[in-house]
Amino acid sequence: MKTPLDCIPCFYIQCLGALRHVDIDEQQKKEVLHQLGREIERFSLDDPPPMMGRTLHRLVKLRCPNGDPYAELKRRYLAHALELQPQITRMVQEASDPLLAAAKLAIIGNVIDFGAQQRAIDLENEIQSLYKQELAICDYAELRRSLARAETILYIADNAAEVVFDRLLLEQLSAKSITFAVRGAPIINDATREDAHAAGIDRLATVITTGDDAPGILFDSCSTEFLDAYNRADLVIAKGQGNFETLSDETRPPCFLLMAKCTVLARHLNVPRNSLILKCQSM
Amino acid sequence: MKTPLDCIPCFYIQCLGALRHVDIDEQQKKEVLHQLGREIERFSLDDPPPMMGRTLHRLVKLRCPNGDPYAELKRRYLAHALELQPQITRMVQEASDPLLAAAKLAIIGNVIDFGAQQRAIDLENEIQSLYKQELAICDYAELRRSLARAETILYIADNAAEVVFDRLLLEQLSAKSITFAVRGAPIINDATREDAHAAGIDRLATVITTGDDAPGILFDSCSTEFLDAYNRADLVIAKGQGNFETLSDETRPPCFLLMAKCTVLARHLNVPRNSLILKCQSM
Repeated sequence: MKTPLDCIPCFYIQCLGALRHVDIDEQQKKEVLHQLGREIERFSLDDPPPMMGRTLHRLVKLRCPNGDPYAELKRRYLAHALELQPQITRMVQEASDPLLAAAKLAIIGNVIDFGAQQRAIDLENEIQSLYKQELAICDYAELRRSLARAETILYIADNAAEVVFDRLLLEQLSAKSITFAVRGAPIINDATREDAHAAGIDRLATVITTGDDAPGILFDSCSTEFLDAYNRADLVIAKGQGNFETLSDETRPPCFLLMAKCTVLARHLNVPRNSLILKCQSM
Repeated sequence: MKTPLDCIPCFYIQCLGALRHVDIDEQQKKEVLHQLGREIERFSLDDPPPMMGRTLHRLVKLRCPNGDPYAELKRRYLAHALELQPQITRMVQEASDPLLAAAKLAIIGNVIDFGAQQRAIDLENEIQSLYKQELAICDYAELRRSLARAETILYIADNAAEVVFDRLLLEQLSAKSITFAVRGAPIINDATREDAHAAGIDRLATVITTGDDAPGILFDSCSTEFLDAYNRADLVIAKGQGNFETLSDETRPPCFLLMAKCTVLARHLNVPRNSLILKCQSM
């Protein structure tokens, strides 16, 4: 997916949002925004938004002593999600179609904003409410068919806490070989190897990384291990907006599970903003 | 008022919004955003946001054949507002306190977004609903006292269509000399001399301009005529956010009538966003 002009102000919003977690003064933060401006000048709108996302978050990470402005937030989000694990597991067990329930909860995992103030009980209510919501795009029949045929599956994760929800879907898969790919280094609140292990994913799948710190898949920067897994897989499942934006134009696109969180993507998919999406057919 | 970092992404949003009314291609629009970035590098956060607003809208106006991207929109908004004149005039006439009613409607005039799709009847409903809303800051007693004492009043306008609402308040004033100041050249949808005349303001006040195209008051760029009127006035009434942002730190600040349209200003005033404000005491 190309980058529309509307993404440019949003790059600044994202950069400023990340800078809030970095202990530098206003003038230093303004300097980072200038650096961003110079990077945007060099950036081609023919490239997908996560390519600029990687650049902008690298600019911020350089100013951060531990190289990860979101470390503490991620830890808290993941802990919240793990508290919810018994409840969401029960929802799948009690569902008339456990695969559909698990797929929907994996999408909801992409939706839930594990805000610092939210208590587990509020999240439970939010999940229940989202669970009742219809999917705006629902290619579930196609997903089920693909899963029945697939011997090797590559599952590309998105956010850290979301991995707890992904686990429910992994438990429903019967393919011989399942590979679970996370980011190669911290980027925003995206899942890394530690998060996958904390959610016990390594007991259900082979955990690999993309070998890159883009919030999406930029093949030129990915490890051979990831590229092999991608090319070998009978079915690729990709979570979240960043993976969609970088993979939706592939000749054989993955099956996407996501929430359309921004107006640009919602317009691209012709759905209302904040829609739940299960998209398994080529664009 | 200084410029917080949060205004920087918003400058890009405003610039892109203005560029939507200009017939150039995406790459040319991206180039204008780069120019904006270079201007922001030079811009000091100690200056008020409308100083950057002037710069960014000048960048866009340069790409526009008639020098005014908002010309058509302004014409339409003003026509809508003029349709409403009989109704809002009646609201003042029927009010138990016509001065308060007129002041409130002048604030509401700053609120109403005269959207292209809205019909006069929808606007009527919106005005009625806003009219019932309490002012979040209400220094009406102070305004009334100041008006009773003032022999010369300077009224600084904001948006073009809003001038129709300002007229109601001008009709309630009994000062010997009333001067009505508009922008010296087109900027966003701000009122210029033509708009004031279209609303019949010249029959109630002496219409002058700031001599500048900032969406606020930057004294260094204002005409001697405006500066004289400002210094001579017993009371200055200033409409809208841009005038507030540039005049609120004055030792003898004007009486402000506005809606706090953005989160930055709402936080500054410690009110919820979209609050109606009548602020007549020093900051």
